[in-house]
Amino acid sequence: MQKENLFVIKIGGNIIDDEHRLSAFVTSFAALKGKKILVHGGGKLATKLAADLQVPQQMVNGRRITDSETLKIITMVYAGLINKSIVAALQQHGANAVGLTGADGDLIRSVKRTNANIDYGFVGDVKKVNGPFLSDLLQRNITVVVAPVTHDGGGVLLNTNADTIAQEIASEMSGEYSVNLVYSFEKKGVLTDVDNEDSVIPLLTMALYKQYRQEEKIFSGMIPKIDNAFAAIASGVDKVTIGKAEDLEELSQGRTGTILTHE
Amino acid sequence: MQKENLFVIKIGGNIIDDEHRLSAFVTSFAALKGKKILVHGGGKLATKLAADLQVPQQMVNGRRITDSETLKIITMVYAGLINKSIVAALQQHGANAVGLTGADGDLIRSVKRTNANIDYGFVGDVKKVNGPFLSDLLQRNITVVVAPVTHDGGGVLLNTNADTIAQEIASEMSGEYSVNLVYSFEKKGVLTDVDNEDSVIPLLTMALYKQYRQEEKIFSGMIPKIDNAFAAIASGVDKVTIGKAEDLEELSQGRTGTILTHE
Repeated sequence: MQKENLFVIKIGGNIIDDEHRLSAFVTSFAALKGKKILVHGGGKLATKLAADLQVPQQMVNGRRITDSETLKIITMVYAGLINKSIVAALQQHGANAVGLTGADGDLIRSVKRTNANIDYGFVGDVKKVNGPFLSDLLQRNITVVVAPVTHDGGGVLLNTNADTIAQEIASEMSGEYSVNLVYSFEKKGVLTDVDNEDSVIPLLTMALYKQYRQEEKIFSGMIPKIDNAFAAIASGVDKVTIGKAEDLEELSQGRTGTILTHE
Repeated sequence: MQKENLFVIKIGGNIIDDEHRLSAFVTSFAALKGKKILVHGGGKLATKLAADLQVPQQMVNGRRITDSETLKIITMVYAGLINKSIVAALQQHGANAVGLTGADGDLIRSVKRTNANIDYGFVGDVKKVNGPFLSDLLQRNITVVVAPVTHDGGGVLLNTNADTIAQEIASEMSGEYSVNLVYSFEKKGVLTDVDNEDSVIPLLTMALYKQYRQEEKIFSGMIPKIDNAFAAIASGVDKVTIGKAEDLEELSQGRTGTILTHE
């Protein structure tokens, strides 16, 4: 029996920071036919709120050190403001959405990151995605909107990378669904020259990725996203595409952006 | 056929402001046997955040005027920080909780309040509770935790009174369930002397309520809550009790607090 299609779409931070671009994205996401899950990042709103509240922020290797005050800010901004604004907008466009963190319905259990050199604070690495719960919601034609906050099962919320959440959800659901994972953000795809939007790699094989990395042609900030994408493919996700949020419809059909493939 | 029991518990703001009392309450709520829905208020955290962010707050007749900046704060604090902290704590205590606003799953549709004299801003009055969605979740043994934020269906979130939400949910579910509605807060029940905790009215009939109101024996701040409680009874809710959050187990069994009845 052929598996039903499922979109897992990640929307990146820079789009979330821009009200008009976010609104346009939500409209195009609502119009996507079929079952779908949206994972959103955090954007700069949390950083701005932390500045307004004079809570100092520390970044190490592009990762936010999440102390207890910062965790509160993240929970407010990601799980509250961003998540619920997206859910209300999806309802307006006729998509019956439910916004969840990893704590809701035990959706995503994680473990607090431990590192001998750096204390990341309340940062979690995904341990388990609750596939049957997601499946239940999808079967009721509910569009799930996931905020990048998970829990450890012991009452503690944890800040968790949204790219990784999208990959873990896509991987978990790939047993039951034919999953199309789309990383959408502000660029047209994976570029060989970060300053040139016309340098999109249309098809990125694992071999080509290794070559470009050796040649240092891929912007370092993209590497975790691409690693996540290849991990998704390795675990059984059918299609992974990286591209511009404004092109969501074409991206979802594999007609633009960077398509990743193992071969 | 006898209806299954359902608890609809409202937890008031003063408990939410106190980490230790909230933690104790969540533990006792998790221990309640059977199907249950928790509706939480907002407490003073939103007021504190508004002060920290220098967003002026205006109260009229005990109601918060909700301008667009205040709506953001409320969404962050109620739907984000408070709701997700409670959900994570319930998961810790073995209750599989899902935290929702009215926008999630179109749970509570409301209309923006219009008033010829006062512009309350983004404040909503409940129009419709999505009973089948709640019922679906309850049948899966999910404990629903509701934040006092609803939506108008047109993409707008609205600040909504939590006492009223509890009553509307209780009323909507009373067709399918034998509903026990409990308003739990910092007092032992409805008092005839607000400064004397020993003046609890054990049984408040409609006739007695009218008499006490004429005699101005009931604290004015309690009147909307009691009106909500009687509205719930009128619509088919089996039991309504008002009392102290610390006594949740006894309250849920009608062994303490104020029991309200029409006769």
